[in-house]
Amino acid sequence: MAAIDSEAFLKDLHELREIGRFKTGVHRPTFSPQDMQSRRWLMDRLTACGLEASIDGIGNVFGRHPGPGPHVLCGSHIESQNEAGWLDGALGVMAAVALARAGLPVDVCAFADEEGHFEGGFLGSRSIIGDLTEAEIDRSRSRNDGSLLRDALKAVGLDGKPRLRLDPARYKGFFEMHIEQGTQLENAGLRIGVVSGIVAIWQFRITVTGQQDHAGGTTMAERKDAGLTTVRLLAAIDAEFPRVCGERSTWTTGRIVLEPGAPSIIPGKADVLFQFRDVSVPVLERMEETLYRLARETNRRERCVVSVEPISKAIPALCDPRMMEALSSAAETLAPGAWQVMPSGAGHDAQNIARVMPAAMLFVPSIGGISHHWAEDTKDEDLALGIQVLGEGVRRFLAG
Amino acid sequence: MAAIDSEAFLKDLHELREIGRFKTGVHRPTFSPQDMQSRRWLMDRLTACGLEASIDGIGNVFGRHPGPGPHVLCGSHIESQNEAGWLDGALGVMAAVALARAGLPVDVCAFADEEGHFEGGFLGSRSIIGDLTEAEIDRSRSRNDGSLLRDALKAVGLDGKPRLRLDPARYKGFFEMHIEQGTQLENAGLRIGVVSGIVAIWQFRITVTGQQDHAGGTTMAERKDAGLTTVRLLAAIDAEFPRVCGERSTWTTGRIVLEPGAPSIIPGKADVLFQFRDVSVPVLERMEETLYRLARETNRRERCVVSVEPISKAIPALCDPRMMEALSSAAETLAPGAWQVMPSGAGHDAQNIARVMPAAMLFVPSIGGISHHWAEDTKDEDLALGIQVLGEGVRRFLAG
Repeated sequence: MAAIDSEAFLKDLHELREIGRFKTGVHRPTFSPQDMQSRRWLMDRLTACGLEASIDGIGNVFGRHPGPGPHVLCGSHIESQNEAGWLDGALGVMAAVALARAGLPVDVCAFADEEGHFEGGFLGSRSIIGDLTEAEIDRSRSRNDGSLLRDALKAVGLDGKPRLRLDPARYKGFFEMHIEQGTQLENAGLRIGVVSGIVAIWQFRITVTGQQDHAGGTTMAERKDAGLTTVRLLAAIDAEFPRVCGERSTWTTGRIVLEPGAPSIIPGKADVLFQFRDVSVPVLERMEETLYRLARETNRRERCVVSVEPISKAIPALCDPRMMEALSSAAETLAPGAWQVMPSGAGHDAQNIARVMPAAMLFVPSIGGISHHWAEDTKDEDLALGIQVLGEGVRRFLAG
Repeated sequence: MAAIDSEAFLKDLHELREIGRFKTGVHRPTFSPQDMQSRRWLMDRLTACGLEASIDGIGNVFGRHPGPGPHVLCGSHIESQNEAGWLDGALGVMAAVALARAGLPVDVCAFADEEGHFEGGFLGSRSIIGDLTEAEIDRSRSRNDGSLLRDALKAVGLDGKPRLRLDPARYKGFFEMHIEQGTQLENAGLRIGVVSGIVAIWQFRITVTGQQDHAGGTTMAERKDAGLTTVRLLAAIDAEFPRVCGERSTWTTGRIVLEPGAPSIIPGKADVLFQFRDVSVPVLERMEETLYRLARETNRRERCVVSVEPISKAIPALCDPRMMEALSSAAETLAPGAWQVMPSGAGHDAQNIARVMPAAMLFVPSIGGISHHWAEDTKDEDLALGIQVLGEGVRRFLAG
């Protein structure tokens, strides 16, 4: 078994960066010409590393190791968000290729549409574990232009192709390398993160119904101002959540829409997208209870009516302790004192694969924490260290 | 001088309601085909009442009384907000026509674009007092579709026509009849409001600048969440304003836009439209000072940056005491005990005309306070009582 070739790994990454290049990042939305070009390029790379390359009916690119096991599965995604970074997803796929090139018994997978250009999200990793129905594919539309996923699959020649299913018995586990997409490592002066778990996102639609009225003719005492009730509720949530949340919980109001949204009209309705994240289900449940309690308190006190409707409640994925141990010991060997165990605040394909086999993730620092933006970047030396730690971790795990 | 013909007045109103009818209301945006049809219809009505009818270069429809003075000016506006009520504006114009029909020495004016379909607002009443420049007309764009006011004027054949200017020496005063657009009269069981003054609206754009980041990768301690800072600031304004405001002050946040407005992205910017209203300049100034103080406090405490930019600061218009007295005595004669003196919380053309001559307004109740909505309505008997009180008030004022 050869050493991991960091130079070839970086060369791969920079070559892939040229496909759909946008400023210093890339624009490779799922099933765009640039995305399909990158999938074909990847299949050539897989073949060149001695893997049996294929693409399936949802766009997953798979490289199967022809030799004997025990095997590990390794990968991430290759499409990007619109006008986004060159490493998000691509890093994990090319890391898997680097392991295969070194002769490790690795199957490589680039899971389609982790970035959710189409409704549903995580189409590739959900399909490959059997969690994506044909009916859902029929319904799913592009979030960019509303076109049907089915039409996009036809246009790129994938519709009707069989969809791959993983055989969990083939694998000891799944590894995904990824950029951190935050500033934890950078701020702590660390170079490697061994991921303890992937947070679950619980998303809610909060609707506040008041009474649309003229802002001049209606006294403060008469108003049912849906915007003001929303403001008070969100301020209360932000004041209360620290009392019930976990150490790394986050909560985010990404959107507030007041109707009709005119300067001289009292908003009759407010539509709010709210989410929180944690790795612990009891913590998530405490936050959810607090959200509902504050909505009830608001409804007792205010003239507007608040309703809270869950949109999605995922299950957190905990990383496999033996895989984490292998990665941690490799990190301590290659970067003594310069690594930490940390949760992943973002969702990843690994959270789906973790449902059918042990899984683990390795983080490298994001410069300035920038992510989902073309300026996203990581130092070459951190990328090179990361691939060596991953390779050594996989070796130790397979030997364990 | 004939009695005021309430029946003809109601017939006029119902005929005008058919032009641009939308459900039980009307849709007559400024310079739309429906609006121009209503202006032509009005000119025919003015001519039929013996007035000299004309339309000027900003769309003001004017009916000049050919006989000797002293004259009063009377009117309101004839266009509507989008899919809005049948009485807002139209009531005051047709009331003026009813007075002219009865032989009172009344000039009638329908001021263009009181509703502000074009940038600037109150174009007609500002033009007729000399407060609208050609340069402002050049710049002004439709708030509905962004097209130029100048192009709209050309399309309806008004561009290049001279714009009317009032000769204040011709008039003893200006009367405007209007629906209340609130529930004060209805809740008090009253049928007539004699307006004491028109509140000034002070409008502000509040911009909160934070840092757009991934909602998963960024801890609560690291975030610069522009939405959350906005929520806390608006909650603080609502808690503080009652300590400095007047008895009838109002404050309204009509719009909050978070950028980029996606569920998993921490808002990097918030754009807020905020306004407050009062009839007293010292009260308005106290509220403004409080707004700036709270913005400064937020900037000391929070990681996002708040900036407050005034959009417009109008001057409140007080109604003329002698005209109010004439209307009050007429109300007490025709509706004893069923009227009150009250401020107008909404802006009206009268606030501009009041800058060049004495002005007064008369309110009739709005059913359920509904306004700026097609369901806006007033009982026929309240409309009929209102026109009689207005006519009698104008007579007493002219005789005084």
